[in-house]
Amino acid sequence: MNKTITILPGDGIGLEVVKATTVVLDKIADMYGHHFDYQYADIGGAAIDKYENPLPQETIDACKNSDGVLLGAVGGPKWDNHPKGIRPEQGLLGIRKELKLFANLRPVTGHESLTDSSTLRKEVVDNVDLMILRELTGGLYFGEPQERRQVDGEEAAVDTLQYKKSEIERIVRQGFEMAKLRRKQLTSVDKANVLESSRLWRETVEEVKKDYPEVELDHMLVDNAAMQLIRDPKQFDVIVTENMFGDILSDEASMLTGSLGMLPSASVGSEAPGLYEPVHGSAPDIAGEGKANPLATISSAAMMLKYSFDMQEEADSVDRAVAEVLTSGHRTGDIAKQGEPILSTEEMTEKVLNAL
Amino acid sequence: MNKTITILPGDGIGLEVVKATTVVLDKIADMYGHHFDYQYADIGGAAIDKYENPLPQETIDACKNSDGVLLGAVGGPKWDNHPKGIRPEQGLLGIRKELKLFANLRPVTGHESLTDSSTLRKEVVDNVDLMILRELTGGLYFGEPQERRQVDGEEAAVDTLQYKKSEIERIVRQGFEMAKLRRKQLTSVDKANVLESSRLWRETVEEVKKDYPEVELDHMLVDNAAMQLIRDPKQFDVIVTENMFGDILSDEASMLTGSLGMLPSASVGSEAPGLYEPVHGSAPDIAGEGKANPLATISSAAMMLKYSFDMQEEADSVDRAVAEVLTSGHRTGDIAKQGEPILSTEEMTEKVLNAL
Ligand SMILES: CC(C)[C@H](C(=O)O)[C@@H](O)C(=O)O
Ligand SMILES: CC(C)[C@H](C(=O)O)[C@@H](O)C(=O)O
Repeated sequence: MNKTITILPGDGIGLEVVKATTVVLDKIADMYGHHFDYQYADIGGAAIDKYENPLPQETIDACKNSDGVLLGAVGGPKWDNHPKGIRPEQGLLGIRKELKLFANLRPVTGHESLTDSSTLRKEVVDNVDLMILRELTGGLYFGEPQERRQVDGEEAAVDTLQYKKSEIERIVRQGFEMAKLRRKQLTSVDKANVLESSRLWRETVEEVKKDYPEVELDHMLVDNAAMQLIRDPKQFDVIVTENMFGDILSDEASMLTGSLGMLPSASVGSEAPGLYEPVHGSAPDIAGEGKANPLATISSAAMMLKYSFDMQEEADSVDRAVAEVLTSGHRTGDIAKQGEPILSTEEMTEKVLNAL
Repeated sequence: MNKTITILPGDGIGLEVVKATTVVLDKIADMYGHHFDYQYADIGGAAIDKYENPLPQETIDACKNSDGVLLGAVGGPKWDNHPKGIRPEQGLLGIRKELKLFANLRPVTGHESLTDSSTLRKEVVDNVDLMILRELTGGLYFGEPQERRQVDGEEAAVDTLQYKKSEIERIVRQGFEMAKLRRKQLTSVDKANVLESSRLWRETVEEVKKDYPEVELDHMLVDNAAMQLIRDPKQFDVIVTENMFGDILSDEASMLTGSLGMLPSASVGSEAPGLYEPVHGSAPDIAGEGKANPLATISSAAMMLKYSFDMQEEADSVDRAVAEVLTSGHRTGDIAKQGEPILSTEEMTEKVLNAL
């Protein structure tokens, strides 16, 4: 198959990790007789530097005219105080909205050889295998009004948490679908004892549930979910929740495996191509030094193969190669223990190629 | 000194734990020559049963006419589906608003003899000593509009996150004051890369900071804070944040010590009496069986002595007695390890009295 992939390196180590990943994708193309075309575009700080715009129209067009988007990372202290208040993250939020990427998939699976580096006890996190499904284009992130105003004669600020029923339904349905393919257990997280949007959320979940009698459903309050993820993460299979709760819980859950540098993510919609990116940030402190861990981005590409290109076997090959590299004890600086030899980004990529 | 304390037993084990706590308070009164008068009032499910109202006016009046309020817990499955949508939690939210309790103090300190029961590694949580200061009367919990509406021809729900500058300033100032009395380190948590209310929050923090040159200040995004609490909780001294973020982070942090049954909380304002309650819920499954752990409520009463009655020495006595009881190995069911003898609520209370 021929596929066009838009590459958005972004900022900091984003450049290095996407470069490593295209090398792996090329090897997959070779092995399975595919052809991947890459088109590069700017986003985030890099785009602000060139265009004074974190998400230029060309970038949006490139993404729309492709089969999948691979993103490195955006942001860095360089753009923290732009005079016009332009911020790199606006590029990320904008592309989610433009491509209607309403579902963010955040799998959390520990590589057994790495659970030592978790701050949680080994028996608590060994074999954790959960998926957080976060709504990505609604809620507080995009609700209007979002503004400064005068209240009781003084300055105030307001954000709006709004959900339409259809927005809830499509992400919840995806949650049930995903649970059906996994251990058939869905936890819907809300704050229905306080928020009206959560009460609509919960009602909608109960309605969609009727179409999935085989899936076991739980409702959990967000404060309790934040506890349970630490108390007993193995109780979870698929968690589905709204945008802001998902942001917080998925980052919390990323700590279970003890290695942020390992975690991939996918953001998908129903029409446009999906966007795939590592969970980690742009790490400006080590940018350009060849120290970045490329595995999270490589795993994100595996998610692209699976979810956007329907290449299950190819995706499995990549996942197996990453697991093998880890089992063999190869480590970049972020996951190495005291005294272990440290590989560069390129060397780690080479190990993955060999394992393929 | 003479003090009038309003006791709101609430639901479930609430009744047992406040009873245990008045016994301890009486002993303190004896020891130090004080007199505590108790007046009882209904809240939550108990009040719904009697008055169809989770917060009757008599309860509000009783609280306002006292020097401190001690609350057990509210809620339970019995009131989950009230026909008029009346919920026990409304009593809790209502009393916070009525008494203008804008600051929720959630100390997280591990009792060394209990860190074994944390799911985090001992070296990560040993000697954790942090305080989360949560804004309690603003934000999504109380913002208007909170409603159902039609959007694009379909049902939608909306909640409003609003903060006035003065609401931010008073809680942030309290954060600096508290940090000044502790290790002089304040972390302000927001989501300034997305929310307008967080940007006003951050600006306000920067302004208040000028009055506290001796306090070291950090800003942290809420998703990162959810990670850092697990990655390295000892980096924190005082955390100050808005209502919903505080709800999530303080419950997450409660897991660090491995014993929810041990954690106290205080909610204070600038005029009315403060409200003191254990972090744990009403535990309907064990209600009435004399199994409840009274220590969190007893520790909450110690916070009342300290923050509402300015009885530092008396508060220290209670805290020392609780610590001693734990060090001696006395355990209720929730904190006992396999094979350890289990004390009833009354027996545990007796141990505290003896240790005083
Ligand atoms: C950068 C930020 C706007 C973004 C978010 O909050 O969605 C990030 O935290 C994420 O989770 O992808
Ligand atoms: C019961 C609920 C409304 C309440 C809250 O969210 O504030 C509780 O979780 C708390 O933290 O005291």
